[in-house]
Amino acid sequence: MSSIDSTTVESLNSIPISEADFYIGLCLAVSSSAFIGSSFIIKKISLKKLNKVGLRASAGGFGYLKDWTWWIGFLTMGVGELANFGAYAFAPASLVTPLGALSVLVSAILASKFLHETLNANGKMGCILCILGSIVVVIHAPHSEEFPSMDALMVRVLEPDFLYYVFIVSVIVIVIMFFLGPRYGNKYVAVYVALCSATGSLTVMSCKALGLAIRSSISGDLPTKDVWMVIVIFCAVICFICLQMNYLNKALDVFETSIVTPVYYVMFTTMVIVVSAILFKEWVNMEATSVLGAICGFGITVVAIFLLSYSNKKTNEHPLAPSRAVIRQYGSNTLLSRTV
Amino acid sequence: MSSIDSTTVESLNSIPISEADFYIGLCLAVSSSAFIGSSFIIKKISLKKLNKVGLRASAGGFGYLKDWTWWIGFLTMGVGELANFGAYAFAPASLVTPLGALSVLVSAILASKFLHETLNANGKMGCILCILGSIVVVIHAPHSEEFPSMDALMVRVLEPDFLYYVFIVSVIVIVIMFFLGPRYGNKYVAVYVALCSATGSLTVMSCKALGLAIRSSISGDLPTKDVWMVIVIFCAVICFICLQMNYLNKALDVFETSIVTPVYYVMFTTMVIVVSAILFKEWVNMEATSVLGAICGFGITVVAIFLLSYSNKKTNEHPLAPSRAVIRQYGSNTLLSRTV
Repeated sequence: MSSIDSTTVESLNSIPISEADFYIGLCLAVSSSAFIGSSFIIKKISLKKLNKVGLRASAGGFGYLKDWTWWIGFLTMGVGELANFGAYAFAPASLVTPLGALSVLVSAILASKFLHETLNANGKMGCILCILGSIVVVIHAPHSEEFPSMDALMVRVLEPDFLYYVFIVSVIVIVIMFFLGPRYGNKYVAVYVALCSATGSLTVMSCKALGLAIRSSISGDLPTKDVWMVIVIFCAVICFICLQMNYLNKALDVFETSIVTPVYYVMFTTMVIVVSAILFKEWVNMEATSVLGAICGFGITVVAIFLLSYSNKKTNEHPLAPSRAVIRQYGSNTLLSRTV
Repeated sequence: MSSIDSTTVESLNSIPISEADFYIGLCLAVSSSAFIGSSFIIKKISLKKLNKVGLRASAGGFGYLKDWTWWIGFLTMGVGELANFGAYAFAPASLVTPLGALSVLVSAILASKFLHETLNANGKMGCILCILGSIVVVIHAPHSEEFPSMDALMVRVLEPDFLYYVFIVSVIVIVIMFFLGPRYGNKYVAVYVALCSATGSLTVMSCKALGLAIRSSISGDLPTKDVWMVIVIFCAVICFICLQMNYLNKALDVFETSIVTPVYYVMFTTMVIVVSAILFKEWVNMEATSVLGAICGFGITVVAIFLLSYSNKKTNEHPLAPSRAVIRQYGSNTLLSRTV
């Protein structure tokens, strides 16, 4: 009887992901960064072209809808977001999120090639570091992370430590929304970005749950009783994304993209790593050197992002950044690219 | 009979170093960098003080010999060089040499603290990267490298691949000394630095041999017939160091320290890693990910050194650099700090 119990308990724990899943997730994460990074540049090329011939998008023109370049950019972004979602379904979040740095790298390289934005010495070093840091992240990424079923995930979600995390996130969100935001949101970049990052960490976990549900339903393992749960999670994802989008736009409205990007990357990735560690206990079985290596890898990508961001500060044109007016008009995709 | 043969052959191969040796070597390498890094600053403080009261050292004054600060700097440097020599005796060269980056870090931090040389954003990022890169280097350093006896080392040294390397180094040295140096030495920083690095790689290997000899003689395992070999190696080390010192000073005479330091670090460390790989075959039994990690770690420290060097370029005062006149007068210690 006790052996059956322990089996049940074990079947509810997170299990090591297969090597194949890990590499599928890795490829999806890298290609997602490539697509998202390019999409920014394609859209920017389109908007530049339109600025020459007609009404600026920021002034209310809809000419961009007739431009095939804009649509290619839109499509590229969509493919990138899908790949990102897929990456989260296959690989650990602590691998996928830090690799978001590669999208900044791709943007920077393409911007220097197609938009003639010069990449200075700092930018070049940022590019090299971005690649080196990402390799270190991949080498030391945790491999054990997957729940065998939705039931197992839900049991884990309802344990105190995760609920405690959700409680803290809720407090952060409410405090910033109603108290800190109105007072300090326009003074300190970290205020709104903290709200986005805290919410974003839950978005990522919800997306992982959705990914699990989709994979279960494809293999026919999703019980009908779990469908309502999937619907609830889906609605939660939509809410989280709207919240993030709203507050990220507030931050981008006040601060330079070159400031917001690195701060957002650091806060968001840190919180995803924390929540992922709580939910999947992925670090428990790792060697100390691997944990240290993973921290170093993340630290290196952070420096890379700062270098890349600073390198474009002088020109005021970050490769990731469409003009602020455009962001206000159409919403920022940087948010999606980093969370879903 | 064949089993005896294979045992003999095995006893001549390099063997895994013990964990204790690895960590002793690591501690020596780190403390050596700390001592050498501080010694530059202590000497600089002394020279600054003397400049105020008397004849400048570069103008022929010997006042520095009466200054206790200068002697503390001299002593610190000596202790650092000894620790560095010890580090090579215990740990793989592919670990010790890249960690030389830490001396630049220590100099930069102390210079900003005691010499009021401001550390700009690049410098700060360089410091962080230097630490992160060094950790990655340590995590992925090869562990199997040690010859059981001087005989085993000599058998290995006389094998074609190492002799081939020595031949290439000799060609590089002769070509630069007599052909490239006089024509391009003052135009391209890489010319004289290549000579220093090529010679330096042999200095390091000779120092490892001396270290082995000293350890063997302490444990009473050094046959009397090997003593002449030790003397030859010792003389070789002296020659190599003189050659390096001469040509490094030539390079420093023409180019900024902020240019020479990173180029020298890259070339010297690369050549040490190459010769160490040839002689000790330390990479053969390593996993692909560890080799990749080691390469990334080295790459990261390279970027760190560039950032630290660039950060001080504007002030023309690299923490590693005494004034050029001082270098001409007393010889540069940067050479020793990186090779012995």
